[in-house]
Amino acid sequence: MIILGIDPGYAIVGYGVIEKIGNTTTCLDYGVITTHKDDTFPDRLVQIDDALDYLIEKYKPDCLAIEELFFQNNQKTAINVAEARGVIVVKAKKKIGKLFEYTPLQIKQALTGQGRAEKAQVQYMVKAILNLKEIPKPDDAADALAVAVCHSQTNQAIGNFKY
Amino acid sequence: MIILGIDPGYAIVGYGVIEKIGNTTTCLDYGVITTHKDDTFPDRLVQIDDALDYLIEKYKPDCLAIEELFFQNNQKTAINVAEARGVIVVKAKKKIGKLFEYTPLQIKQALTGQGRAEKAQVQYMVKAILNLKEIPKPDDAADALAVAVCHSQTNQAIGNFKY
Repeated sequence: MIILGIDPGYAIVGYGVIEKIGNTTTCLDYGVITTHKDDTFPDRLVQIDDALDYLIEKYKPDCLAIEELFFQNNQKTAINVAEARGVIVVKAKKKIGKLFEYTPLQIKQALTGQGRAEKAQVQYMVKAILNLKEIPKPDDAADALAVAVCHSQTNQAIGNFKY
Repeated sequence: MIILGIDPGYAIVGYGVIEKIGNTTTCLDYGVITTHKDDTFPDRLVQIDDALDYLIEKYKPDCLAIEELFFQNNQKTAINVAEARGVIVVKAKKKIGKLFEYTPLQIKQALTGQGRAEKAQVQYMVKAILNLKEIPKPDDAADALAVAVCHSQTNQAIGNFKY
């Protein structure tokens, strides 16, 4: 099973691609989709849409795992991230078919065993579980791998996250 | 020129299709895309995406005009509307090519001559300009026609709304 994990955003979208075979989970790729700040916002959404097409075509994931949006202090940013997330969600449903959403608490719980874990602990576990030499950078990529690993570990066992 | 006006939402998306030939603007269609509240939110986004495909295929609009999101008191609702709006924006860019965004103030100004107009005044002007027998219902459809009419009246003259 190949899982595409996505950390939603509009300036930077983190992605992580992992493969789970039996009990072994390996990292195939990770990185960020960066949109151009000088472009219009609609064009930045199109850049995200195009980049997802590329990743889906390249890795042919069986599902996409994405973090639920939590409310932010900056409402303008929250709205822009939400607009990008809508694009990602429809892409997952239409091009991959399976979409799973997890809250930050669920991700921390799945990776570290505790919902209140620090970011560094989560990143350490991403590195350990995927047998990476270093903690993935930037944080957006590490977060995307974390949600992918969360899905590979919980895999429908914790509830109704399958759409 | 055929203009597809959209009033963004996730439970109800208003749409209005108008045609401008010379100085005459006529209404081709208006209505609402309604998504099913019992479905998952991602599925509701897909329903909006599919309905837009249908409308674009049917009317072959030259452009899409949409209202800019203003901040709402209910942040959960605002985020959901924003997710739907992201889907609409990418659809407009990829399937139609031209997208225009207007603020509520610009729409009121274009239709009534004053930015602080009441909703009823705007709706009255939609009816008058499009030579309709009645004020379009529901409000979402009237709002969608209003942004379409706004674009037909201002049509790039008021600034950088062309992407």
